[in-house]
Amino acid sequence: MKNLNVGLIGGGFMGKAHSLAYSAMPMFFWPAPAIPVRHTIAEANENLAAEAARRFGFENSTSDWRSIIDDPSIDVVDIATPNHLHAEIAIAAARAGKHIICEKPLARTGEESKAMYDAVKDAGIVHMVAFNYRRTPAVALAKKYIEEGAIGRVLNFRGTYLQDWSADPNSPLSWRFQKKVAGSGALGDIATHVIDMARYLVGEFASVNSILSTFIPERPLQTGGADALGNVRGGEGPRGEVDVDDEVMTMVRFANGAVGSIEATRNAYGRNNFITFEIHGTEGSIFFNYERRDELQVCFASDGNDRRGFRTVYTGPAHPYGEGLWPIPALGIGYGETKIIEAHDFFKAIAEGGSVSPNFADGYQTALIDDAIVASAEKNAWVDVPVVAELAAAGK
Amino acid sequence: MKNLNVGLIGGGFMGKAHSLAYSAMPMFFWPAPAIPVRHTIAEANENLAAEAARRFGFENSTSDWRSIIDDPSIDVVDIATPNHLHAEIAIAAARAGKHIICEKPLARTGEESKAMYDAVKDAGIVHMVAFNYRRTPAVALAKKYIEEGAIGRVLNFRGTYLQDWSADPNSPLSWRFQKKVAGSGALGDIATHVIDMARYLVGEFASVNSILSTFIPERPLQTGGADALGNVRGGEGPRGEVDVDDEVMTMVRFANGAVGSIEATRNAYGRNNFITFEIHGTEGSIFFNYERRDELQVCFASDGNDRRGFRTVYTGPAHPYGEGLWPIPALGIGYGETKIIEAHDFFKAIAEGGSVSPNFADGYQTALIDDAIVASAEKNAWVDVPVVAELAAAGK
Amino acid sequence: MKNLNVGLIGGGFMGKAHSLAYSAMPMFFWPAPAIPVRHTIAEANENLAAEAARRFGFENSTSDWRSIIDDPSIDVVDIATPNHLHAEIAIAAARAGKHIICEKPLARTGEESKAMYDAVKDAGIVHMVAFNYRRTPAVALAKKYIEEGAIGRVLNFRGTYLQDWSADPNSPLSWRFQKKVAGSGALGDIATHVIDMARYLVGEFASVNSILSTFIPERPLQTGGADALGNVRGGEGPRGEVDVDDEVMTMVRFANGAVGSIEATRNAYGRNNFITFEIHGTEGSIFFNYERRDELQVCFASDGNDRRGFRTVYTGPAHPYGEGLWPIPALGIGYGETKIIEAHDFFKAIAEGGSVSPNFADGYQTALIDDAIVASAEKNAWVDVPVVAELAAAGK
Amino acid sequence: MKNLNVGLIGGGFMGKAHSLAYSAMPMFFWPAPAIPVRHTIAEANENLAAEAARRFGFENSTSDWRSIIDDPSIDVVDIATPNHLHAEIAIAAARAGKHIICEKPLARTGEESKAMYDAVKDAGIVHMVAFNYRRTPAVALAKKYIEEGAIGRVLNFRGTYLQDWSADPNSPLSWRFQKKVAGSGALGDIATHVIDMARYLVGEFASVNSILSTFIPERPLQTGGADALGNVRGGEGPRGEVDVDDEVMTMVRFANGAVGSIEATRNAYGRNNFITFEIHGTEGSIFFNYERRDELQVCFASDGNDRRGFRTVYTGPAHPYGEGLWPIPALGIGYGETKIIEAHDFFKAIAEGGSVSPNFADGYQTALIDDAIVASAEKNAWVDVPVVAELAAAGK
Repeated sequence: MKNLNVGLIGGGFMGKAHSLAYSAMPMFFWPAPAIPVRHTIAEANENLAAEAARRFGFENSTSDWRSIIDDPSIDVVDIATPNHLHAEIAIAAARAGKHIICEKPLARTGEESKAMYDAVKDAGIVHMVAFNYRRTPAVALAKKYIEEGAIGRVLNFRGTYLQDWSADPNSPLSWRFQKKVAGSGALGDIATHVIDMARYLVGEFASVNSILSTFIPERPLQTGGADALGNVRGGEGPRGEVDVDDEVMTMVRFANGAVGSIEATRNAYGRNNFITFEIHGTEGSIFFNYERRDELQVCFASDGNDRRGFRTVYTGPAHPYGEGLWPIPALGIGYGETKIIEAHDFFKAIAEGGSVSPNFADGYQTALIDDAIVASAEKNAWVDVPVVAELAAAGK
Repeated sequence: MKNLNVGLIGGGFMGKAHSLAYSAMPMFFWPAPAIPVRHTIAEANENLAAEAARRFGFENSTSDWRSIIDDPSIDVVDIATPNHLHAEIAIAAARAGKHIICEKPLARTGEESKAMYDAVKDAGIVHMVAFNYRRTPAVALAKKYIEEGAIGRVLNFRGTYLQDWSADPNSPLSWRFQKKVAGSGALGDIATHVIDMARYLVGEFASVNSILSTFIPERPLQTGGADALGNVRGGEGPRGEVDVDDEVMTMVRFANGAVGSIEATRNAYGRNNFITFEIHGTEGSIFFNYERRDELQVCFASDGNDRRGFRTVYTGPAHPYGEGLWPIPALGIGYGETKIIEAHDFFKAIAEGGSVSPNFADGYQTALIDDAIVASAEKNAWVDVPVVAELAAAGK
Repeated sequence: MKNLNVGLIGGGFMGKAHSLAYSAMPMFFWPAPAIPVRHTIAEANENLAAEAARRFGFENSTSDWRSIIDDPSIDVVDIATPNHLHAEIAIAAARAGKHIICEKPLARTGEESKAMYDAVKDAGIVHMVAFNYRRTPAVALAKKYIEEGAIGRVLNFRGTYLQDWSADPNSPLSWRFQKKVAGSGALGDIATHVIDMARYLVGEFASVNSILSTFIPERPLQTGGADALGNVRGGEGPRGEVDVDDEVMTMVRFANGAVGSIEATRNAYGRNNFITFEIHGTEGSIFFNYERRDELQVCFASDGNDRRGFRTVYTGPAHPYGEGLWPIPALGIGYGETKIIEAHDFFKAIAEGGSVSPNFADGYQTALIDDAIVASAEKNAWVDVPVVAELAAAGK
Repeated sequence: MKNLNVGLIGGGFMGKAHSLAYSAMPMFFWPAPAIPVRHTIAEANENLAAEAARRFGFENSTSDWRSIIDDPSIDVVDIATPNHLHAEIAIAAARAGKHIICEKPLARTGEESKAMYDAVKDAGIVHMVAFNYRRTPAVALAKKYIEEGAIGRVLNFRGTYLQDWSADPNSPLSWRFQKKVAGSGALGDIATHVIDMARYLVGEFASVNSILSTFIPERPLQTGGADALGNVRGGEGPRGEVDVDDEVMTMVRFANGAVGSIEATRNAYGRNNFITFEIHGTEGSIFFNYERRDELQVCFASDGNDRRGFRTVYTGPAHPYGEGLWPIPALGIGYGETKIIEAHDFFKAIAEGGSVSPNFADGYQTALIDDAIVASAEKNAWVDVPVVAELAAAGK
């Protein structure tokens, strides 16, 4: 078990989640593939950085993310900044030979994503994009069932990601509502997670047909705070334009013939982190809802007529990643555990000299899908989705 | 309370449901608007008709549905036959001045539906199409909330109708898989119910963009039996072509600016009568699932932050139609009660000389939407939906 | 298929439910074991009786229930009156050789129940007590699984019956709160249903240990109306004493060694008809909730570790009574269907010259359990439950 | 923010949970009340201890727990051993002036617990017993509603703790099935959590009436491994006697007049960590199920008749402890977060020089209740529960 030094850029919500993961990963997965050492954290200024170091248990702090890139003792760069900084940091880190984990979406556009993908390919390092939800044990269990053929050939997929934190027209104009920072709205922020799960569970997208809607065209300007996420209310002050989508709705034709639909909105009162998918196959069905994330619903056609129905499989030791989690089912996992598992698989790839999914190829592919969704909504028409050569070759 | 004589054409599953409704309606709703008298039932031959009369409590039976039309003592004609007979019977009944209730879908196409609609308009009789699900008390409660403004302006609608009775490739080639009898597959059979609820709750459709899929292209020929509904298994015998859709998926733009998606399939293992809708408004959300039909889920934005969440409102005496149902909430209603309520509202319109919704205008409108969905799937493009003048005028 | 004439005594909530059952039974179960003819209905006065006859489809009406007993053309007497009249009517009907179905609880006490039981034993007629909930298909499916050994030996049972219609201290003092009419409160009114299901699914009770609580000691006097069931609110007027229990809680030792608990209250806000049971066996578990009455939850220990969990079996054609209900699962049943099935089994016993469960022996046994629960609560101690000889002999 | 050095005794399942809490607490709650420093961990031998130190991030390790007591630099002793060691360690730590957090149950009996309670009272240190489940945000929210009077006066409480990890007769005879180590079975292991929540939410117990059952009298001897928790299967080898309960069922009379029932079993197939409670009050009801731990169900009587029902309140930033958890509701918490919150409140009490609940008085009180439950089951009678003077005085 080697120690690997991590430089984390960004001490917000994601910085917290990743710090937790580095600390807890060996506690959960033992023997660990490697021991992540919280070496240096970067924040906007010295004070914030020093505070973040103490809070998140880092040995050093800096206000200059480039010093992390330049530090030869650092093995891993973790990018947990707003989206518009991803590309510059990742490309620099790749050139410096660091292994990279980058928050999703990979970047604002397919073009930016391609540049990042090209950089990591050239560098030969381990790279990962943090679509953590596919590491929820119940989602990994769905993958296992599908791969075992337990639900037969997949016919269709319907996914949703519904939240309500921006339903209030007075929630502030955070960077998440600004195209120049975020790239897109609900699409890049949350729909990408569902797109990632659709690719993971069903396969590559062939074409999409989409509607993008902006329900609340102006929001109060945000004063202070990095990312209010709707928990601060604006007031009577000036408002700024929202130039991203509040909701995305798309139909999908998959390369393997399956069909699907995906919907994501941050304006759904009463839905909090309602990431769901339902998959029908020729031999069974699967349903997942992250709000009840420990559970996977599965129905097997092969069950007898008088006892067939959705089974509520409560994930635990007998299921994917179970050896590292809690010893009794239903002690239950939270958001943190998805990040702990993610960290495990990332460090395992580094330790073993392999690769991990989803990586920058996947992040780039998701960006291509996002671009196609935007184009489709603009043209009111089906738009084909190109597939990154490496992924197409993998026959995914 | 007048007695009104009913002639029922068709003694299958729907004949049973309607007979129950006529018998039970005054038991539930008292004083009743009128007393339905089960006067005559028509079936394919004399023996079947006589048996149906005894089973369903009709005074007379016939193997010739035209004798019902010709009988001046009959006030109401009830059409519960396969779809291809609807138009001929309804037009004849309208010309004979009978009030008409017709099972859904109104007919196989918009063209057929228009002829029926024209006939009843000319005849000045009371007409109804049996989209019974909108009469589920919880659905009517959703309508009430929306009309009261309790969830604000409607932003979107997502509906599903998922069943599994035809998921088995060996379920027989009933008339429901044959275009010449059924007109379409999951679209006409089940999606129409969701389309009806979408129109009822949100408003008219402006355009659609759809995928139709046929997953099982051949099924065993059915020998005997009117409508096996998947409960009989075929065998090694000869197979015939399925020329209708197993699944329909559509996106919708509503005339009032809301967006939506609808999916219907009869190949979803584990889903039985999974008619659901979720509606997000600017002030709240609503969710309904017919499999738990007594309940409506509603979230009000106006609830305090520390106590907001979906309320499970269990319908009963305090909710729509509650005065006629059971005196304690959660005694619970079944499919039959939706038909009892439907009969109540139909006879009330007759007794009061008014009209009722959904009527043939609604049935025709649904057929126009179905036609647009088919066209959209064929063209791989958005297709506009024309609106029946009467409905457009009503500003619905 | 013989016609059998029914005389129904009582035109309230239960009269409605039974009338529906007689009308609908042959519609659902065909060929029917016999055709119930709605011959005569008795109510408190001539006007009420005549109105009930028209509403519920009876040929004749009377204000004197004894005329039903005396009418030789009547085959079946149906007792749907308040509890204090059950014994007198049933004993008279038995002596007149009528088959009898009596609403639950059989009577106010074990003593009254014994007199009724003795009368029907002597008369040799078919008798039934209307614990309809055990005829919910999902409950019958639980019974089937247990009898097949699918969950192994039963270890324990926990049942509830929670309602909220009397939680409001201003709901009126209906007969259900008066000991002299009702015998007991939540115990006789609703707990008896759970006791019946416990006996049906697990076996005879050996001893009980109970708490009876009266939370609301006075309620407004009711003026007019037979049985307000909490839907009418009292006001500032005079109040009368409640001398029955609002809640009963009991532990149970079953004769076969299993243990259990039962709780019933009509003061549980948010619970409507929350009849639940959970049963753990050595090979699996079962859970049922009447508020979602179409579903049975079952977990089989024999399922593989990575796919074990409660299955939600949605009852329909493949389950008990399915041949008579709706042709598609999840069209769904309501309270009425439990009564239709009950009527079917009762008339089947008459037609075949057999007997049916639960009958007056079961009703008497339940009354003995009720008496033991009352005694236990008074003594603050475990009290043994005697078992009716016939049932003990049946080795139930 | 002071650093406080922790000595942790026990590196099993609980050691992991507590280590996570110490590492993550400042990440979640910032500014933290104090920074826990993982100073020394003790395990059964040097190798195990060294490995635990590396895994859980401790600076030092030892095979002698007394060296932790003797180390003046250690501020806090954390007892995460099997139950029979709690008393000796806690008393020694108290005498050494360490603050103490001890896993539940406090000890094997009331007598042992009293000795521990006396020791910490004399020492004047901060002490806590780790009934973590009451720190689930949804449970704390229930407490808040009750204290605000939002559900009125509490009438009753029904709690369960159902697991299935010992349902298999071949799961090994871990220390949890041996009275001399564990004290009791399901009672001490899991029922105590529900007892703690009942005391927290309703108040002190006045008397109990209980059944204890042992369903599986012998289990395979365990060879190696500290605490198999049912995940290892025994085989054909020799078996040993189980001398503790598999299931406990009790009725409760609370000092304030409310009544209740509690059931706990580790033999309930399909239930994993099914910690539930339902509370009915004069103005509303509450339901909680740990398997869906982010949610609290609450029904307010004051809601309008046509929109009343259980609300599913999804806990997040607007609810107890929300400021320290994740910024979006439904990111969701797992078992770890309950421990992180527990650590927060414990260190807060140390930092502020106050006290925390549940502490050793509560742990002792729970032991007294356990003893009364055992006595009640032995005597088949109600048994009164004495209340620790300090708690009685607090008028709890």
